[in-house]
Amino acid sequence: MTAKTDATPANDRELVLTRLIDAPREKVFKAWTDAELLKQWFAPLPWTTPAVEVDVRPGGSSMFVMRDPDGNDYPNKGVYLEVVESEKLVFTDAFTEAWLPSEKPFFTGVLTFEDEGGKTRYTARARHWTKEDRDAHEKMGFHEGWGQCADQLEALVKKI
Amino acid sequence: MTAKTDATPANDRELVLTRLIDAPREKVFKAWTDAELLKQWFAPLPWTTPAVEVDVRPGGSSMFVMRDPDGNDYPNKGVYLEVVESEKLVFTDAFTEAWLPSEKPFFTGVLTFEDEGGKTRYTARARHWTKEDRDAHEKMGFHEGWGQCADQLEALVKKI
Repeated sequence: MTAKTDATPANDRELVLTRLIDAPREKVFKAWTDAELLKQWFAPLPWTTPAVEVDVRPGGSSMFVMRDPDGNDYPNKGVYLEVVESEKLVFTDAFTEAWLPSEKPFFTGVLTFEDEGGKTRYTARARHWTKEDRDAHEKMGFHEGWGQCADQLEALVKKI
Repeated sequence: MTAKTDATPANDRELVLTRLIDAPREKVFKAWTDAELLKQWFAPLPWTTPAVEVDVRPGGSSMFVMRDPDGNDYPNKGVYLEVVESEKLVFTDAFTEAWLPSEKPFFTGVLTFEDEGGKTRYTARARHWTKEDRDAHEKMGFHEGWGQCADQLEALVKKI
């Protein structure tokens, strides 16, 4: 049996990335839910994440500030929809806080963390409201960007 | 002190209806969360609601079939986002089930049920992603339709 390195999208509005990470899923989940850890891996270098505020519970808000190499800041707000400790995390940019619709619902992220041979099967699904947004997200570099972030995430969880 | 008969929208993407209903809020909440009761008041007559399936919990699905006077059926799917027993109910059509984006996120409904002088202050807020959708919803007859439904709801809760 070989480790899966990809997963099949549920439909033509979804993008998926999956990785087998050599760390327990409790640590991978923590890296996704602890603000100080998120700052260390969330943006693909040379971008950085200088500010993170997360209230990890259904209806709780998130705010990530991503900084480009020129020092420009890009704040992103969202809301958590479902939280299952060390198993699942669902969030969306369709709301800026519970329950205020955002300017533009772009995607909902569904993350799962599963045991697999002593490691963690980490799967990130980005579900969009339109195929156009899914295609735009892919062109923005979804696979490269989320892939690089998964590398950064893995490097971090091996240290904590 | 006079009873409020309207409420102020939070912004130009929101529509609001409020009523003082002469029944305890537990009954008004029940009329909104019990499938058999929903069938009796949910659509403005002569429209009817022949089928209702509700799983009233955060992440639970709802499905309402509304029937026009010619017998045409219009199914509507949604997901509950927040449920506070006899106090608050939040749902959206942005997902058809947890957590699959719908074809078109149109609005999120935020219902509150408050004690007021022995009666129930019932407030229904419809929050849209765009001002265009808010305006379209108003032109579709939001105030008349939700107002008539509130009349039907009030008549029902006085009997249960």
